[in-house]
Amino acid sequence: MRVTVPDESWLPVLAERPVEVAVWDGVHEPQPAGWIDLALWPYTVDPSALERVDASRIGLIQGQALGYDGVAERIPGGRYANAVGVHEDSTAELATALLLAAVRDLDVFARQQAQGRWEKRWTSSLLDRRVMLLGVGGIGSRVARRLDGFGCELVRVGSRARRDADGIVHGPQDLPELLPTVDAVVVAVPLTADTERLVDADFLGRLPDGAVVVNVARGLTADTDAVLAEAGRLRYASDVFDPEPLPADHPLWSAPGVIISPHVGGMSSAMRPRIEAVVLRQVDRLLAGAEPIDVVVDRRSDAS
Amino acid sequence: MRVTVPDESWLPVLAERPVEVAVWDGVHEPQPAGWIDLALWPYTVDPSALERVDASRIGLIQGQALGYDGVAERIPGGRYANAVGVHEDSTAELATALLLAAVRDLDVFARQQAQGRWEKRWTSSLLDRRVMLLGVGGIGSRVARRLDGFGCELVRVGSRARRDADGIVHGPQDLPELLPTVDAVVVAVPLTADTERLVDADFLGRLPDGAVVVNVARGLTADTDAVLAEAGRLRYASDVFDPEPLPADHPLWSAPGVIISPHVGGMSSAMRPRIEAVVLRQVDRLLAGAEPIDVVVDRRSDAS
Repeated sequence: MRVTVPDESWLPVLAERPVEVAVWDGVHEPQPAGWIDLALWPYTVDPSALERVDASRIGLIQGQALGYDGVAERIPGGRYANAVGVHEDSTAELATALLLAAVRDLDVFARQQAQGRWEKRWTSSLLDRRVMLLGVGGIGSRVARRLDGFGCELVRVGSRARRDADGIVHGPQDLPELLPTVDAVVVAVPLTADTERLVDADFLGRLPDGAVVVNVARGLTADTDAVLAEAGRLRYASDVFDPEPLPADHPLWSAPGVIISPHVGGMSSAMRPRIEAVVLRQVDRLLAGAEPIDVVVDRRSDAS
Repeated sequence: MRVTVPDESWLPVLAERPVEVAVWDGVHEPQPAGWIDLALWPYTVDPSALERVDASRIGLIQGQALGYDGVAERIPGGRYANAVGVHEDSTAELATALLLAAVRDLDVFARQQAQGRWEKRWTSSLLDRRVMLLGVGGIGSRVARRLDGFGCELVRVGSRARRDADGIVHGPQDLPELLPTVDAVVVAVPLTADTERLVDADFLGRLPDGAVVVNVARGLTADTDAVLAEAGRLRYASDVFDPEPLPADHPLWSAPGVIISPHVGGMSSAMRPRIEAVVLRQVDRLLAGAEPIDVVVDRRSDAS
C-alpha cells in the first residue's frame, strides 16, 4: 500500500504501518507516478490546488479540514474524506473565547492596555443571559458543552425543528421570533444554499442592542455589508470572513465593536494528535480491506 | 428600621419593605445623625474611606465586595458583612475569558487587527492540557464548573490537602512538584499571610515554557517583579495588580505576553440582581430579629 504525506514530520507517525510512504505536498512537487492508495492533503492549502491533481490515480484524498466546499468539482474520478473530529473542539473553544472576549470587553481593555490606561467599565456577562446556538452539529454541540457552566440559557436552532436528548432544537422558521429574545448568537452552521448570507440585515436587525454575534462557520454565512451597518449597535466577533483573507484596507478591521481572528479555529495544538488519529484509522481500514470513513465526495465513477 | 443606600437607584429595591431609607454614599455626604440599622456601602469606594465613618452608630455595614482586607482596623465598634455570592460567578467568568484569550492568542490578534494585518498563527489550546486551580473556594470552584466542558484536566490546590466530592484537592506543599506538570494556573486564593507573594520567582520558575498564569485573586498574591522577569517565557493574564491601579508608566503594560484588565472581575451585569438579593435578605433577617449572615468583621465590643 502506498501513502503520501505532505511533509516529513508525518514519517514517524506511519513508521509502524506496513505501507510505503512518500512525501508529496500536493502543490510544489509533481504528483508521484503510479497509484496512490491514500494521499494526505496539506492543511493550509486551498482546495483550488486540487485542480492540478490527477485524482483518478488516488484511492482516497484525505483532507485535514472539516469544510470541503469547492472540492467536489475539482476531483473528477477521485474520492475525498474530510477531517471529522479534528477541528470541532478547537473551533468551539475559539468560539467560546471570542464570545467571552466580546461579552467582557477584552478588546476594549486590550486597546487601553496599549495606551497604559487603567479605566474600569461595567461590562455584560453570560450570566442570566440567553445565547442562541445557530447550528447544533459537530461545532455547535461542543460550544453547548463549553457554555454549560456559564449560567446562561441556551437556545438551540438547527436545520429543522426536533427534540433530542438535551431538549428542544428550533427550526430556522423560528428565527424571526427568537432573535429579539437572545443576547448572543454563535453561528456554527455548514455553508449551504440555506445558510449562505443567513446573517443578513433582517437577521441582525432583529437582535437587541448590544447583542453579540460570533461567527465560526464560513464567511459567506454573513452579509459583510449588513454587519458593517450594524457594527456599534451590535458586537461582532468572527473567525471567518467574506472576503477572506480580509484585505488590509477593509473597513471591518476598524469597525466599532468588531473582534477579528484570522480563521484560526482549527489552528491549535489540539489538531495534530487528532488528525494523526484520523490518518492512522483510515490507513488501518484500508489495510484491513474496509471502506474508509467520512468520505464526503466520491466521483470514482465519473469521467474526468 | 433605618437603612442607608449609596444612591437613589436603590430606593425602588427597598420600596416594599417597612423600613426608612436614606441616601448616604459614605464618602461625599456627612453621616446621617442617629442610629442606622444597615448601611449599604458603595461598591467602588476603597475601604480606607471607612475611617471617616462612626461605625458604632451603624448596626451593620453591608459591603458590596467579596474581599475585605483593610476593613477590620477601620471600623472600631462596628460590624461588617461582605457580599457573598455576588461576584464569584462573574469573576470566574472573567478568569475563564482571560485564560482563553491567552491560550488562543486573542491579544496577538487584537494587535494585528489594529494594524489591519491578516496573519494566521498556531496557538495553544486547553484541549489535552492540565490546568491548575490555585484556590478552590467560591471563585475557584466556579472556574472549575466553567472549564468542565473544555477537555482539560483540572489540578486543584487548596489551603490543605483533602478529598471532596470532585476528587483530590492538593495542599500547598505539593506545589513545587505540581507546577512543572501544568500548562496553566488560575490564581483565585484569598489574600492571607500564606498567599501574599505566593506567585514569586520560584513559583513562576517551575512552570514550563509557554504556561499561562491567570490572576483574579488580589494583586499582592503575585510578586510583580518576578512576573516581569518571566514575561515572554510565560503568559500572564491578570485582573489584579500590585500596585493598583497600575500607573501609566508601569512596565507591565507593555511586557510581552501580558494581558491586563483593570480589576473588573465583579463589574458585570451579573452583579446588580445578586447584590440586591443580598441586601433584601439581610434587611428581611433584621426585620425578623434574626442575625445577619456573612458577618466577617464584628468589633461591636471594642472601644473606638
